[in-house]
Amino acid sequence: MYRLDSSDGDFAARFEDLLGSKREASQEVGDAVAAIIAAVADRGDGALIDYTARFDRLTLTPEGLRFSAAEIAEAGRAVPQAVTDALRFAHDRIRAHHEKQKPSDHVYEDALGVTLGTLWSPVESVGLYVPGGTAAYPSSVLMNAVPAKVAGVERIAMVVPTPDGVVNPTVLAAASIAGITEIYRVGGAQAVAALAYGTQTIAPVAKIVGPGNAYVAAAKRQVFGRVGIDMIAGPSEVLVIADRSANPAWIAADLLAQAEHGGGAQSILLTTDSGIAEASIAEVERQLALLPRRDIAAAGWAEFGAVITVSSMDEAIALANRIASEHLELMVDRPRDLLPLIRNAGAIFLGHHTPEAIGDYVGGSNHVLPTARSARFASGLGVLDFMKRTSLLGCDPGSLAALADAAVTLAGTEGLDAHGRSVSIRLNR
Amino acid sequence: MYRLDSSDGDFAARFEDLLGSKREASQEVGDAVAAIIAAVADRGDGALIDYTARFDRLTLTPEGLRFSAAEIAEAGRAVPQAVTDALRFAHDRIRAHHEKQKPSDHVYEDALGVTLGTLWSPVESVGLYVPGGTAAYPSSVLMNAVPAKVAGVERIAMVVPTPDGVVNPTVLAAASIAGITEIYRVGGAQAVAALAYGTQTIAPVAKIVGPGNAYVAAAKRQVFGRVGIDMIAGPSEVLVIADRSANPAWIAADLLAQAEHGGGAQSILLTTDSGIAEASIAEVERQLALLPRRDIAAAGWAEFGAVITVSSMDEAIALANRIASEHLELMVDRPRDLLPLIRNAGAIFLGHHTPEAIGDYVGGSNHVLPTARSARFASGLGVLDFMKRTSLLGCDPGSLAALADAAVTLAGTEGLDAHGRSVSIRLNR
Repeated sequence: MYRLDSSDGDFAARFEDLLGSKREASQEVGDAVAAIIAAVADRGDGALIDYTARFDRLTLTPEGLRFSAAEIAEAGRAVPQAVTDALRFAHDRIRAHHEKQKPSDHVYEDALGVTLGTLWSPVESVGLYVPGGTAAYPSSVLMNAVPAKVAGVERIAMVVPTPDGVVNPTVLAAASIAGITEIYRVGGAQAVAALAYGTQTIAPVAKIVGPGNAYVAAAKRQVFGRVGIDMIAGPSEVLVIADRSANPAWIAADLLAQAEHGGGAQSILLTTDSGIAEASIAEVERQLALLPRRDIAAAGWAEFGAVITVSSMDEAIALANRIASEHLELMVDRPRDLLPLIRNAGAIFLGHHTPEAIGDYVGGSNHVLPTARSARFASGLGVLDFMKRTSLLGCDPGSLAALADAAVTLAGTEGLDAHGRSVSIRLNR
Repeated sequence: MYRLDSSDGDFAARFEDLLGSKREASQEVGDAVAAIIAAVADRGDGALIDYTARFDRLTLTPEGLRFSAAEIAEAGRAVPQAVTDALRFAHDRIRAHHEKQKPSDHVYEDALGVTLGTLWSPVESVGLYVPGGTAAYPSSVLMNAVPAKVAGVERIAMVVPTPDGVVNPTVLAAASIAGITEIYRVGGAQAVAALAYGTQTIAPVAKIVGPGNAYVAAAKRQVFGRVGIDMIAGPSEVLVIADRSANPAWIAADLLAQAEHGGGAQSILLTTDSGIAEASIAEVERQLALLPRRDIAAAGWAEFGAVITVSSMDEAIALANRIASEHLELMVDRPRDLLPLIRNAGAIFLGHHTPEAIGDYVGGSNHVLPTARSARFASGLGVLDFMKRTSLLGCDPGSLAALADAAVTLAGTEGLDAHGRSVSIRLNR
């Protein structure tokens, strides 16, 4: 665990260290992934089936690539009713919130009579990658699928690997609740390639979203341009800002909720109160003993955790803006007072009664958020990620005449005379 | 030139050919670029200066990397007044239109008492890449800089190579009109690396935008994740949909305005009227003779141009949606009637009096648009590209209690007990 105090002489350097710390083992998988993509683009289903046999130890036929409606329904019946109910509750709340994100077209005429505007339209088809094994989170299926549905995406093709044929029924149930019916039992770079290039069985999509391992991330990076992709997610992270009004036991519970993800997940506490700092550290140790995943959480806390004591709330906010955390909890007396000062954060959790886990599942906001300081330039997943803008321009003879001279002048200075001619040919001069 | 008729037996296959045609020589520059980025990340200014000597034949000192205020002012004085006036006119129109794109925060409380919301904030610092040499377009400086300024970006660092020390004064004048004062005379992958990693002289930025050659594109792809990037632009393209009301001479002028870009630029005419098709082809040949860049335009039209005759406007729109063109001109009698049918296009130009060139310069809409069919999933550049969303979630004890059971159930099904505990520890049960 990093233990920093902003009044220490070496604070600036140690904070830089913390910011620059690598939390993800970088795997050089680019060449292997390029070969997989080329094979799937070339041979389609055949390559997809070969890689699935090799990596997932699962023998498939082209007909067996897709889950049948009966298999999806059967998975739904295998899920306990309480879980199904919770998934529906989460789905409905996520849907209600995302409905409010739908943008409006805007078309207007300016003073010169020029029509200008922006038209929004949904992406027609989206591929949703869902990891298999221990990282299979039904909540993530909802978080990716619901904004796409709200945006009006007509076709969502989901891929989820089933290593050794083991299916996670809750993931299929979540997909079903979200209205997804097209699901393929493939994963890895080969599934990303199938979504991007299409195969005999899987029609290509226009955009691919969803989390995955290093192979999936590399595949998304390589197909970017041919299709759209979402952000490439790194390990999750939480930053808690606490003043003396905070409860150290609650702080510790939130730090540990992040640490239990493992895989480089990071929990940071920034506090103006050294008593809160010490008490929270002690609470982390105490609560660790209560956790089923205590080994993972303890290792993550030890390696990546940080507790930083600062002299003022202004200083805390300044550091938080540099950290640009995926999740930012404001466990302070008056959290809303801080909002105007916060410039970089994926999501903000207000006050003592809003643990991040509420947002992970049922708050209604999206839990797919920018990691690894990318909140400096990126946003969480939302409806806008599944739509695109088309701009609109319209002139009549009068407004064209009003714009023509400047356009012809600029075309001339750029050496593009045909551009200028395409304007002047329309003028009756 | 491709000449297709949708009633031909082999139309489907030939249209697929057209869609799949490669218009960009793919250069394998990834390894060279990776080495350049590593060197700049490691040695900073020293590497930047070495590469500039090697690629731009220009010897610089760290102090000479940045244009001085006097140099920028001097460049402004070297630009003819008519060009300065046209740049200002364009700037003000682009600014006025982009002001209308500014998003609003939205915070509300739902029926359970949960606070939900979206807060927008500008990216703090942006790097703007501007190509040197023949591809130096002052209009592109405006199109990239204005939305950043409108978004509220505090720092814009522009890079523009000056091979052999040759400066394009109009590019500097455009930057100055847009309010850019931080400009460095470097380019290529080394400039992208400097913006992403920072050097002793150039502070790093959070996002990099702007067009460039294959090295610049590869560098942007490689630094993506560390910083944000805009789309990677391919050759420009126009699709003209014309009915019998269109003027073949105007169609031809627009097709040639695109073809004169060279470098794989593509012009396509889709028409319901074979007379318009033939007359437009003849007009292209006639007007080619009038153009200073006739060799480039003729070669581009011959290699990548296409004229497609279709049997109905519905068919034209269906094909246009598959082409997903960067620019779509509707040279038809009632262009607005077609708008609800168009699903994929970067920008739409309405009616006979709206040549694309108006949008390239002074219409007010942005000319940085998705190419190579990426309008299926991407949008033109706008104010939103220089801002990011932070989501907001807030519970009080009552609303937390209303959400708690479902959250704990879902955490349990995902095996994340510490997530559940972070909720239940706050309940007085």
